[in-house]
Amino acid sequence: MAEAKVLSGAGLRGQVAGQTALSTVGQAGAGLTYRGYDVRELAAEARFEEVAYLLLYGELPNATELAAYMGKLRTLRDLPQALKEVLERIPADAHPMDVMRTGCSFLGNIEPEGDFSRQHEATDRLLAAFPAIMCYWYRFSHEGKRIDCVTDEASLGGHFLHLLHGKAPSELHRKVMDVSLILYAEHEFNASTFTARVCASTLSDLFSCVTAAIGSLRGPLHGGANEAAMEMIERYGSAQEAIEGTLGMLARKDKIMGFGHAIYKDSDPRNEVIKGWSKQLADEVGDSVLFPVSEAIDKTMWEQKKLFPNADFYHASAYHFMGIPTKLFTPIFVCSRLTGWAAHVFEQRANNRIIRPSAEYTGVEQRKFVPIERR
Amino acid sequence: MAEAKVLSGAGLRGQVAGQTALSTVGQAGAGLTYRGYDVRELAAEARFEEVAYLLLYGELPNATELAAYMGKLRTLRDLPQALKEVLERIPADAHPMDVMRTGCSFLGNIEPEGDFSRQHEATDRLLAAFPAIMCYWYRFSHEGKRIDCVTDEASLGGHFLHLLHGKAPSELHRKVMDVSLILYAEHEFNASTFTARVCASTLSDLFSCVTAAIGSLRGPLHGGANEAAMEMIERYGSAQEAIEGTLGMLARKDKIMGFGHAIYKDSDPRNEVIKGWSKQLADEVGDSVLFPVSEAIDKTMWEQKKLFPNADFYHASAYHFMGIPTKLFTPIFVCSRLTGWAAHVFEQRANNRIIRPSAEYTGVEQRKFVPIERR
Repeated sequence: MAEAKVLSGAGLRGQVAGQTALSTVGQAGAGLTYRGYDVRELAAEARFEEVAYLLLYGELPNATELAAYMGKLRTLRDLPQALKEVLERIPADAHPMDVMRTGCSFLGNIEPEGDFSRQHEATDRLLAAFPAIMCYWYRFSHEGKRIDCVTDEASLGGHFLHLLHGKAPSELHRKVMDVSLILYAEHEFNASTFTARVCASTLSDLFSCVTAAIGSLRGPLHGGANEAAMEMIERYGSAQEAIEGTLGMLARKDKIMGFGHAIYKDSDPRNEVIKGWSKQLADEVGDSVLFPVSEAIDKTMWEQKKLFPNADFYHASAYHFMGIPTKLFTPIFVCSRLTGWAAHVFEQRANNRIIRPSAEYTGVEQRKFVPIERR
Repeated sequence: MAEAKVLSGAGLRGQVAGQTALSTVGQAGAGLTYRGYDVRELAAEARFEEVAYLLLYGELPNATELAAYMGKLRTLRDLPQALKEVLERIPADAHPMDVMRTGCSFLGNIEPEGDFSRQHEATDRLLAAFPAIMCYWYRFSHEGKRIDCVTDEASLGGHFLHLLHGKAPSELHRKVMDVSLILYAEHEFNASTFTARVCASTLSDLFSCVTAAIGSLRGPLHGGANEAAMEMIERYGSAQEAIEGTLGMLARKDKIMGFGHAIYKDSDPRNEVIKGWSKQLADEVGDSVLFPVSEAIDKTMWEQKKLFPNADFYHASAYHFMGIPTKLFTPIFVCSRLTGWAAHVFEQRANNRIIRPSAEYTGVEQRKFVPIERR
């Protein structure tokens, strides 16, 4: 190991660990691009399924391709009976990300990817099935209800809201879910995506890679910031309370979730998009607390710390206005980011070398074994 | 990302991605050490539970500590009824590593780690339960039998063999399983361990980290080499056939599993250990084919390619002589390597920074969105 290079900084920060053609993060002129397209344009003009197709198949679909793709996904939404029975055995107080991880892993047993030539089929299946995995468990464990996992919703976002609420969502809610799924779809070598690539580099199957990525996204340093933001926002009854509470948190050096970013330095391009939609939802429901509280925290963080809201902060209020329980925020992230994870798995497979770094040894010198009777 | 450094070579090969006090691989004087002890000494003189304790708790236990630890593990072997019901829903033709991944993930729902202060409890539980997860599924799906997951075997290795065969194993078999579990316990920043550390770096829970690692170990470039070696060895009826077959494979440039190593250059220190035990097992069963075939392949590979057998090669025949089905070889690796994975998770948590490298962008230039009707 004499030749091993010590990298500056822990966590491989700023170190190139591979190549990707999928996205750029924090480059000049566009904060975030998916295969060359500015995420703000995609969020404004595309459907989530177009973006999924772009990431997974390389180019935006034309109208015929999109219709075929959406039609195919619609046929893949139901869950096998065995998977439903597994989900019924997970209690209501389980961590919803443990449910997603287990649902994905179990599906890999009964509908294995098999050959890599089936990688798109396996991905499409997971993409279509994740909303049902989440909602079947949630509604069975919380309401005792075995829901029908099939709806006639055209889009995955609408399908998810329909399963969750047991009724057709409004056009506005369908649109916002679509936007949200687009914003969270892909983000270069973040920790969960890198997990998926390390797993893929052993030539493991897609279900293993996605299961592993869910495990990483579960961590509070990665997914979950929008849940933490929601818990903070809900504490305040008015903008004034929020300002005072935020100043107090800053004085106590409490961690405030939903602000700043490891890579973006001035703003998160996704924030302006979801903030606008959160405002529309606030107007729709006649909210006079959550959105003003959110803005007050946002303003205070900028004035005090020059910290900007990231993609997660206004997602909290947006999801809340659509009636989504806070504990399901990170599982929605899974439904979206699956597209990025899978596209990275395809990339890794197409030009693979096993990801196996070295370590700097900091332990004891070599020592002689001591038999147990002399310890 | 202008400051990002491009690493020489793909797969982070030879690049230091973090620190560890757990093991050294390929250093002069000792091929492999666990916390300073040569793995060959540990395999000769220690029990697997001593090595697990060493890795997980930092030092070899004294007799009192070891007795307490083994006693504790014995109480943790049974599976919750819900997990048995999940395993019963996995078909016989599932990939056994998918079963291990799912069993681990599901257990995380019903017995969550909770606070990191419980990381040792969660690890001990998994360590004690993995043999039953493997064998309960295997014997239910293959034999239709709901086995009792509790045995009076003192050691985990003996417990596993007892569950698998439904009877007490011989002392020799207990010893060889112990040795095997020691040899596979830890190996620095291999791909599955690195997967566990990336997952841990988001501060995710232990079950997520282990589930993710299982997913990586499943890949044919990582775990599974002993299974592939077994399939090769079984093809030949004699040493002469094996020599001819190996020469043919080399001429055709077929991949021959169980030889060479990414880090060891001259020999794998684990090979001499397991080879010796495989020979003893061969003598016990009066084998006159498998072991001579293995030696013939070994000799041919060295003469032709100067390639040495790694830990996996003689594991194939050793496991076979103990009546272990080939498809369970890699799940045994899980039962052992869990100790290394968990110890790395503890290390990562103790001095954490999220592992989030950068990527070199190789995709298309930024481009303007094209509405679907113009595609």
